[in-house]
Amino acid sequence: MSVPDEPRADPATTRLRRVDGDPARASALDPAIAARLRRTADGLVAAVVQRHGSGEVLMMAWMDDEALHRTLTTGRATYWSRSRQEYWVKGATSGHHQYVRSVRLDCDGDTVLVTVEQVGAACHTGAGNCFFDELPVTGTIADPQEDR
Amino acid sequence: MSVPDEPRADPATTRLRRVDGDPARASALDPAIAARLRRTADGLVAAVVQRHGSGEVLMMAWMDDEALHRTLTTGRATYWSRSRQEYWVKGATSGHHQYVRSVRLDCDGDTVLVTVEQVGAACHTGAGNCFFDELPVTGTIADPQEDR
Repeated sequence: MSVPDEPRADPATTRLRRVDGDPARASALDPAIAARLRRTADGLVAAVVQRHGSGEVLMMAWMDDEALHRTLTTGRATYWSRSRQEYWVKGATSGHHQYVRSVRLDCDGDTVLVTVEQVGAACHTGAGNCFFDELPVTGTIADPQEDR
Repeated sequence: MSVPDEPRADPATTRLRRVDGDPARASALDPAIAARLRRTADGLVAAVVQRHGSGEVLMMAWMDDEALHRTLTTGRATYWSRSRQEYWVKGATSGHHQYVRSVRLDCDGDTVLVTVEQVGAACHTGAGNCFFDELPVTGTIADPQEDR
């Protein structure tokens, strides 16, 4: 499969973010949505990404206002890379695209749940999803039926 | 249903955390697991909580090492409240318990996916889950089948 890369983040937008120190200002995100976000000190909300249909949780990433705006208006999942300090459109380099089916904001405005059609592996390691390191649950778990 | 509250966080542990400024030190979490965590500046990892079986994503919360340790060893989902700066066992006051079925760490160690048997509503608003505010996806979404 060969898919052309998405355009990279507009450098002007990125620069504006850094100079202003106010992530919301440089974005075209609908102000009515922006007003409902509760961001980290870095101006980000968490994005939990789930496979449409199966419910498989694929990965967790971060969005600023502009990444959320691009996700909503292009239908392609777009994140803010904290390590590279730039936008990334999932699949732009890997071909593992995410076609957005729904975006839902949580009750306190600090997390979005994005459901996607995932092409190929969601994890950069090549795994189907990022959550492959199972930790041991050693505690005694009550039977919910008995507890009710 | 009436269930006695879980014990609150040990104040000594909480105090130790604050004094030391090293969240990992005050916890009994298995060092082999602790070594794999990549924490925020506040010493936390994100916890995505999913209903066992259905795949419904219920909520997002935060854990420090000790909250993860308690989650793994008691089988009761336990989080760190950033607003109250204390541990909270889900359901301790609401009765809406979460019985842990699995905990998986993601590829870069900053998020855990917790699957639970959820009693009652997962969201403090009374909703079944926290993600009830659907945002409009207005972009043209390519048909993944045609794109392959």
